Amino acid sequence: MATRLMRAGYDVLVWNRSPDACDELAAGGAEVLSSPAEVTDAADITLAMLADPQACAEVALGRDGAVKGLRAGKGYIDSSTVDVTTMQRVEHAVRGQGAAFLEAPVSGSKAPAEQGKLIFMAAGDLGLYQSAVPLFQAMGKMHVYLGEVGSATKMKLVVNMIMGSMMVAFAEGLALSQAAGLNAEDLLRVVNESAIASPMLALKGPQMIRKTFDPAFPLKHQQKDMRLALKMGATDGQYLPVAAAANEAYLRAKLHGQGDLDFSAVIKALHPGDLP
Amino acid sequence: MATRLMRAGYDVLVWNRSPDACDELAAGGAEVLSSPAEVTDAADITLAMLADPQACAEVALGRDGAVKGLRAGKGYIDSSTVDVTTMQRVEHAVRGQGAAFLEAPVSGSKAPAEQGKLIFMAAGDLGLYQSAVPLFQAMGKMHVYLGEVGSATKMKLVVNMIMGSMMVAFAEGLALSQAAGLNAEDLLRVVNESAIASPMLALKGPQMIRKTFDPAFPLKHQQKDMRLALKMGATDGQYLPVAAAANEAYLRAKLHGQGDLDFSAVIKALHPGDLP
Amino acid sequence: MATRLMRAGYDVLVWNRSPDACDELAAGGAEVLSSPAEVTDAADITLAMLADPQACAEVALGRDGAVKGLRAGKGYIDSSTVDVTTMQRVEHAVRGQGAAFLEAPVSGSKAPAEQGKLIFMAAGDLGLYQSAVPLFQAMGKMHVYLGEVGSATKMKLVVNMIMGSMMVAFAEGLALSQAAGLNAEDLLRVVNESAIASPMLALKGPQMIRKTFDPAFPLKHQQKDMRLALKMGATDGQYLPVAAAANEAYLRAKLHGQGDLDFSAVIKALHPGDLP
Amino acid sequence: MATRLMRAGYDVLVWNRSPDACDELAAGGAEVLSSPAEVTDAADITLAMLADPQACAEVALGRDGAVKGLRAGKGYIDSSTVDVTTMQRVEHAVRGQGAAFLEAPVSGSKAPAEQGKLIFMAAGDLGLYQSAVPLFQAMGKMHVYLGEVGSATKMKLVVNMIMGSMMVAFAEGLALSQAAGLNAEDLLRVVNESAIASPMLALKGPQMIRKTFDPAFPLKHQQKDMRLALKMGATDGQYLPVAAAANEAYLRAKLHGQGDLDFSAVIKALHPGDLP
Repeated sequence: MATRLMRAGYDVLVWNRSPDACDELAAGGAEVLSSPAEVTDAADITLAMLADPQACAEVALGRDGAVKGLRAGKGYIDSSTVDVTTMQRVEHAVRGQGAAFLEAPVSGSKAPAEQGKLIFMAAGDLGLYQSAVPLFQAMGKMHVYLGEVGSATKMKLVVNMIMGSMMVAFAEGLALSQAAGLNAEDLLRVVNESAIASPMLALKGPQMIRKTFDPAFPLKHQQKDMRLALKMGATDGQYLPVAAAANEAYLRAKLHGQGDLDFSAVIKALHPGDLP
Repeated sequence: MATRLMRAGYDVLVWNRSPDACDELAAGGAEVLSSPAEVTDAADITLAMLADPQACAEVALGRDGAVKGLRAGKGYIDSSTVDVTTMQRVEHAVRGQGAAFLEAPVSGSKAPAEQGKLIFMAAGDLGLYQSAVPLFQAMGKMHVYLGEVGSATKMKLVVNMIMGSMMVAFAEGLALSQAAGLNAEDLLRVVNESAIASPMLALKGPQMIRKTFDPAFPLKHQQKDMRLALKMGATDGQYLPVAAAANEAYLRAKLHGQGDLDFSAVIKALHPGDLP
Repeated sequence: MATRLMRAGYDVLVWNRSPDACDELAAGGAEVLSSPAEVTDAADITLAMLADPQACAEVALGRDGAVKGLRAGKGYIDSSTVDVTTMQRVEHAVRGQGAAFLEAPVSGSKAPAEQGKLIFMAAGDLGLYQSAVPLFQAMGKMHVYLGEVGSATKMKLVVNMIMGSMMVAFAEGLALSQAAGLNAEDLLRVVNESAIASPMLALKGPQMIRKTFDPAFPLKHQQKDMRLALKMGATDGQYLPVAAAANEAYLRAKLHGQGDLDFSAVIKALHPGDLP
Repeated sequence: MATRLMRAGYDVLVWNRSPDACDELAAGGAEVLSSPAEVTDAADITLAMLADPQACAEVALGRDGAVKGLRAGKGYIDSSTVDVTTMQRVEHAVRGQGAAFLEAPVSGSKAPAEQGKLIFMAAGDLGLYQSAVPLFQAMGKMHVYLGEVGSATKMKLVVNMIMGSMMVAFAEGLALSQAAGLNAEDLLRVVNESAIASPMLALKGPQMIRKTFDPAFPLKHQQKDMRLALKMGATDGQYLPVAAAANEAYLRAKLHGQGDLDFSAVIKALHPGDLP
């Protein structure tokens, strides 16, 4: 993401919990600073991308955290995928400094990030969103504004839940074609021309037939998102029987040691012989 | 389909159980005959498309049925979507006349048929398949040869089962977004740019939000295909937990009088308030 | 069942497709005849118990079949567990001879049969039912009259479906207690004193902990009954999401070679490590 | 429970968050004190029964809470049904005073409590358990010791999960019998004599047919326990497909306003026409 911004001509200041991770960016012209607070103090708009709620909170709220360098006129955009409560805590602290806050989780993994094809789901301060549109355009192919903080995190969960259920739907079809003695390659050819053709099936289908499951999106993360979506259903009032059945398949695969493989490895849960 | 063949320059002979159905084709230059046997007696290759197993068997095997006019050198292609057993009965009778048989069910409903964008899944006599390729090209965008009679019918069931489960997966996401107070149009915008974007979601999504369910593919037919696929799983050795849960959703919608709506009306099963 | 009738003082005439099967009864005083027709010709009331629809139909309707020896004043009771259609065919033929017909499938396997503790679900001719009450009392602990032929077969499917779903419900609890490090024997002690205590759990629980699955009721038969009940739901208008999920568990166990074990072996489907 | 102890001859000291709740006990001879700390200071063994984790923690740990009056030689038994973490916090504080702690959630609702037929699942200090046996005998029909604090809470969740799934299994059977035109009373008669007969079915079956759902155990509490058991499965490593499907049925009923009825009202989720 930082590389895409540099290529688009922006001056980029960087900081990372693992300093080595900045080396390549530094070689490309980015200035490396020594704390989140230094970045927010120097930059107009700061973009954070962290792995989990703990890191997200610590980088924003901790000692020399991002909040410390913020003040009126500045913006802080958090693109982490975390829970709504953590986002709201960060929002509260950022606004307490007089600065603007936006949550902006992304859809898309490593390849779309490199190609500038991420999808940004944004919610929070509308003025900051409008200022950040050129940044989103440099890094992504789409950006959408969804309202109050929390809406973008929820939207991402909904999209991932649909994706997770669809993957099991497809895996069952692939497994059934094989059990019935059909040629799985033929199934892919038909599916790829049909009304259900999608980039996901075009990419994952051949990998699932070859049983190669290099993790673009780890199965354990997909299972976590299914669980969070089911919890959201329980809270917000929607029963989700297919997602519940799909979640059980991910859980079965995860409990048999497949959690670090790609989420398409859920097909192994349909063949106990494939599980250790 | 006949119109597409005429436009491609073929001489077309037609017969229909409901004679009126031939009027438009006759006006366009097709010759109307008075029985299936007359058609097969006069044509090199005959293509049948019937609504159900009974009609499929009667048109082929009944009095003045298609088989009567067949002989060595001729071909009979049945594009109906029926069960494997019926297809095999027809194959047996056709081959008994020395003629060649192909089952060739299609994927795609009314609009793709008019636009010549059907997908032909074919199985049976390979020579007849090769002779029929120009016909498939006139009527469809893809054709695939799958081996012995029965394979094409099974492949179509697998594809329809995947489609049916994916539709419920999407309906649950749409319903969850609404329950969570998100904007459903925003969900469609994101999905249509994401890895799970598909022609089906692009077409059905807006209709599901507007709650218009004109039947391109009736829900009761989708439920029937889910049931047949689950039966195939039980016979051929594949458990299908997500398809089983999806089937229950279609069944619920059907039992509450929604069977004649489009299969996307399964979303009503997620809102009992929408069911009578 | 014949032994129970003899002990109750009835004169018993027997015939079996495998003549050896009559030896023990003959030693006990039963008269062995050489065809179903001889039995019905000589007896006032004939009771049939066959393994499947084919045998049920052949013994009644075949050459020297039971129907041949029937006439007005006689009764034919079929205690086989088969489909409604087969029962209705036999009923039609029996009534065509002027005789009375009753379907009377039983609940209970080997031990209850020996102990005279079967449950008779009967439907058909009410007069024959009333005449047969002393026979039901000699062989069972309960008998119930359910109306027209077909009702008893359906009732038995409903009862078996409930039993099948409950078994998976219990197996999940047992598996969860083990996964959570609890003592499974303690679970049984609590369950056996609780509101869900049942003879089934008291009998099967210890066997499931010991992983001994001698087939009192084979898993493949339980899966067949689940499938038939789901089909009945599809036909008669009832969605059954828990039974559908339970059926998938039985199917998974069956497809991995456990079909001939007791139906309580479905717990193996919850531990893929237990499946070959 | 206090009444049962008084009848057994124990001197009983009581305190309640709602003082009125003690009136009847006071009339029966119990001494009413003014704080939890006064009770624990005066009693050898104190038994707590609270509605939720907050109340459980406050009564034990708050100002003038139970912990304040505890010291070496005394015992504190908490029979609330709460989460493991809360139980462990209370245990830690109790042991910090040198006193002994036992968690002892019960199975059984109002009637069993009045009749002294509760089931006590206990875990924690073994010496205290042994001292408390006469108390458990006065209040219940069974008591079992399960090891470390947390085990009893987990065991109760497992039992309630089994009960919840079994209830949906039975509700589906009842609904199917009605859809198939069978007599539901006949189903109950057969079930009550069969291997799956249980006190729960004997009690709830007639109520479900009459559609009277006075809450002995509210549906929303059953759904909460299903959710906690599914979470326990996700944590401890057990997939639970039938419980997941059953949970969706409870959720559907709850989301349509049936949460305060008895949990047997889940049958309404099988008839959308019964939901508002």
